[in-house]
Amino acid sequence: MPNSQYLRFGTKCLAALLLLAFCGSTPIAESADESANHQADRSAIRAVLDTQQEAWNRGDIDAFLTGYWHSPDLTFSGTNGISRGWDAVLARYKKNYPDRSAMGALDFSNVEFRFLGPDAALVLGHWHLKREKDELGGVFSLIFQSFPEGWRIIHDHTSAVPAESNPK
Amino acid sequence: MPNSQYLRFGTKCLAALLLLAFCGSTPIAESADESANHQADRSAIRAVLDTQQEAWNRGDIDAFLTGYWHSPDLTFSGTNGISRGWDAVLARYKKNYPDRSAMGALDFSNVEFRFLGPDAALVLGHWHLKREKDELGGVFSLIFQSFPEGWRIIHDHTSAVPAESNPK
Repeated sequence: MPNSQYLRFGTKCLAALLLLAFCGSTPIAESADESANHQADRSAIRAVLDTQQEAWNRGDIDAFLTGYWHSPDLTFSGTNGISRGWDAVLARYKKNYPDRSAMGALDFSNVEFRFLGPDAALVLGHWHLKREKDELGGVFSLIFQSFPEGWRIIHDHTSAVPAESNPK
Repeated sequence: MPNSQYLRFGTKCLAALLLLAFCGSTPIAESADESANHQADRSAIRAVLDTQQEAWNRGDIDAFLTGYWHSPDLTFSGTNGISRGWDAVLARYKKNYPDRSAMGALDFSNVEFRFLGPDAALVLGHWHLKREKDELGGVFSLIFQSFPEGWRIIHDHTSAVPAESNPK
């Protein structure tokens, strides 16, 4: 049976030896690696948003919610204050969007990424909802975190932007 | 004249040797260090917010703005969409709060921290403005980043919360 303390010791020593062996490696190579990683992370986050948009547009709020961290520590801020927990966020969406006509067709646009570390990113963008009787939209700020199961939204702050303020 | 490539080489080797020397250190000690760092970071971020609050309450918007990253990449989201750049954020504050009576007395409360890496934190909280003629308030989501000059807000998403929705 493997001893985790031993493995930790071994892994750390190996890391030190490898770092020592590559003391002469160029910073340029590291930057390229980092950039490649962020490219993969960006695609993974974009895929979560695409999945959310598709789920919404087939009326599946439960599937839409899989993009969020399934935790009581998930937070969602807006004109209702701060909602806490995955269950509360799900209940709020189901209350505000009770049927397909309320949900309309969702579109995310102008999505931009700012990586805050190896496991976290700030994602800004615009949302637009086209419904039979009206259209509405606004902006979102999402904090994504990388988990073993993939990138998930751990905090969402969303605002509606009145049509006259919307640059689109 | 120091050669940066040489310094980089030297620093990396030193890091590797130190890591090798401390191969046997316990993960518990690392966690304690990390927790102590976050405590210091939390105090540093809290000090930035306190300085902002004090600046606002003496009518000094320029000093209030020193809490923000002085960069064209600073972003500020809300019901006006996404504003970009320190200059635009300053101009927006000066337009919306042209004098002391418009500024009123600002109070931040229920501030909570979530560290996203060694150099980044998500900070949630409530803001409240007491003015001669009215009171208003809401919630904010701030992304703080650590720079050589200290922790600065790199993104702000603020919402007003109508009084009936405000839990306070």
